[in-house]
Order: sequence, then structure tokens, then C-alpha cells
Amino acid sequence: MTKLRVHNLAVSLDGFATGEGQSLETPFGHAGHRLMSWFFPTRSFVAMTGHDDEAVGRGTSGVDDAFASATNQGIGAEIMGRRKFGPQQGPWEDESWRGWWGEEPPFHSPVVVLTHHERPDLAVGETTFLFRSLGPADALALATEQAGALDVRLGGGPTVVREFLQADLVDHLHIVVVPILLGRGVRLWDGLEGLEDRFSVEVTASTSGVVHYVFTRLPR
Amino acid sequence: MTKLRVHNLAVSLDGFATGEGQSLETPFGHAGHRLMSWFFPTRSFVAMTGHDDEAVGRGTSGVDDAFASATNQGIGAEIMGRRKFGPQQGPWEDESWRGWWGEEPPFHSPVVVLTHHERPDLAVGETTFLFRSLGPADALALATEQAGALDVRLGGGPTVVREFLQADLVDHLHIVVVPILLGRGVRLWDGLEGLEDRFSVEVTASTSGVVHYVFTRLPR
Repeated sequence: MTKLRVHNLAVSLDGFATGEGQSLETPFGHAGHRLMSWFFPTRSFVAMTGHDDEAVGRGTSGVDDAFASATNQGIGAEIMGRRKFGPQQGPWEDESWRGWWGEEPPFHSPVVVLTHHERPDLAVGETTFLFRSLGPADALALATEQAGALDVRLGGGPTVVREFLQADLVDHLHIVVVPILLGRGVRLWDGLEGLEDRFSVEVTASTSGVVHYVFTRLPR
Repeated sequence: MTKLRVHNLAVSLDGFATGEGQSLETPFGHAGHRLMSWFFPTRSFVAMTGHDDEAVGRGTSGVDDAFASATNQGIGAEIMGRRKFGPQQGPWEDESWRGWWGEEPPFHSPVVVLTHHERPDLAVGETTFLFRSLGPADALALATEQAGALDVRLGGGPTVVREFLQADLVDHLHIVVVPILLGRGVRLWDGLEGLEDRFSVEVTASTSGVVHYVFTRLPR
């Protein structure tokens, strides 16, 4: 059986996965880059964004990098919410928006974008975006088909992850708790009382100050 | 300078320090004892509650116990909210309630109980409860006077701790994040956006699954 996996989903100590006031300029709202500042120094991230071969080998290689490096291993497709694809709401006014990532998106595999407003499939570099109005189970079925024998990554945002957790479709949930208090934004944990009963939980603190939580779905 | 210290304040991963539905029978509401289950096995707790000398030396002695053992070190007085003293609300109907702790409360020092409904000082065993209607700064001044040259412990509950944090009176804040999702209750972190700017933060994960956060006030 392939798995549905969440990686590197960062929340503040008070439970917000995104700040308030998201826009084209501020995709994380008033949180800015603070929720991901543990990620940027890692060797995995540096290598992902390096524009030359010299970038390989730079960056930190501790536990934060260990988790970062697991992100893409054995992944054949991603599911994401529309908000992760772009800041637009409602019907597409035109189809010129091709995502945040330029002409070489980092996915290199099919991406199912959940939206009530479908549009034609869009190939950008090695990534094909499939815009579909589907519930969690149907979205997972489509992504699993696209992934072949590999796992599916649930890429967020927090509202989408919450919906899949409520539908009990998530097998691996990696949460990174960042020691800041955002005070406002989108809460990850709402409506998930008792989630721990369905998972084993492993906890690792990093010298960066973040704490990695790995929730592994118990056998059904 | 003596310090105002918070110890062993447990919150769920979704930020609740107390469950919903507090009563005489259920002081932590639907959370039951789950927020403190990391604490009960510790050598410090076993010794505190042991009814014979054999209890000394039993219990765990890892990082959870290390934190538990710091709770009473150098403490000369406590401040607590009325809800920690008892489940009553409004004017005291009678003064027969002497706290949850029987005839030997574990404080062994003066305790300032914050309440809008004052009543005469109450000595129980080695502990004297002083019922006062005071704001955070005045309560701290009174407790500091009572503590002599020692520190003051802020004993909770969460609403009281939040008020003292908002008034920037807390020097040492030890929070224990328990990997459960309570979903409802009293949130600790509301209204504390940016708290981390005033503190250094140290994070330690325990094999019990809890994470210890120590916030130390930066020099003013």
C-alpha cells in the first residue's frame, strides 16, 4: 500500500500554520518567512534552490536537514489546495498564472490542485498541474493513480491538511513547531480533538529551536 | 533581584491548558489527568505524595523529573488564581472550603489567592492563603514581600499566567507541551503575539513524548 504523507508543515507554538493577511506579496501573511526559517539553512533546501553545482554540499546537515531530505523520497504525486498554487479566489479571470515557482517547479511529478473552479491541465517544466473539484477521498484516488507505485504527498495548506486528517486519509504527518507566537492566522489543529488516538507520535527537538513531530497512523 | 517563575504549566499540542467543563469532580474538565500524566511517574512527584519514607527514591529520574524537581527550589511564596484554590464562583457562600489539598497543602509558604471576593487569611498546615483582589503588579509586590529573599512562583491557572505575561512580569516560564489534541478548553497563548521577542527559548524533548519549553526573560 502506498501512503499519503505530509512533510515540513510548520506551525507556531500557538498553532497557526499561516499568518493573517495572505496576498501575492505575502503568501504567509504577517508570519512572513518565520515559520520556515528553520528550513532555509538546510543542505536539502540549499541544494534545491542552488543555481550552480557549488550549492550542493552547502548548508546544515543536522536533524532539520534529515527531515527536509525525506520530503521528496519516494513521492510520485502531490495534492495541494488552490491557495498553495496561487493567491486568486473565485473563477479564474485568465489562465496566465502558472504558480509561484517559475518555469521549473520543484515537484517534478503530477500535482492535483483542489479547486471549485476547474481549468485545463497545465504543464510547467516537468510538473503537470491538474485542477480538480474533488473531495479528499477522490483526490487521493486520482493522485495515487498518477503516482504509480510511489507515495502521494499532501502539500497543504493547513485547511487542506485538516480536511484530510478529518477524513482519516493521512498515514504520515510531519509537523514542525516553531517557537514563536503568531497570535492570528489559520489554525492547523481546530476540529481534530483526539487525533493522537489514531497515531503513534515521535518527538525530536532541534538545536534550531523547532520541534519535529512525526505522527504515524496506527494499523487500522 | 528575585524572580517570578512559572513551572510545569502543561498545555496540549493545540494550546489548551485546561479542558472544558471544570467542576469539583473534574478540575481539569474533559482533559482529566492527561495534561499531567508526564508528571506523576517522576521521583519528585512520588516523593511529594508518598505517605511513607519508602516513597523516596521511587519514580523516574530523567528530564521530566529534573524539571519537576526545580519547582520548589528557592521559592518563598506562590500566587494563584481563585480557580486553582477551588471550583466556587462569586461571593463565598461559606468559608468551609480550605482548598483541594487537605490539611497539609504542598506549598509550605504563603500563597496569594487572586479573587474579587476577599476573605480572612486562612492557615492550613504550614501554608497561609491570603485572599486578595489585586492586579498583577500589586499581587507580585505582596508575594515578593512574603517570600523574603526567595523567588515567587506563579502557580496558574492559565488565565492568570496569561495576565502576568501580558503585564511582562514573568522571568521564567516553563511550559510542557503534551502531544494530545484537546480541541476545547482554556487557551494559554491567546493575546501573546510576539512573546518570544522578550525571551530566550530553550527546548528539550522527553522520551515521555512531552516537550519542555523554558522561556527566560531577556535583560530589560
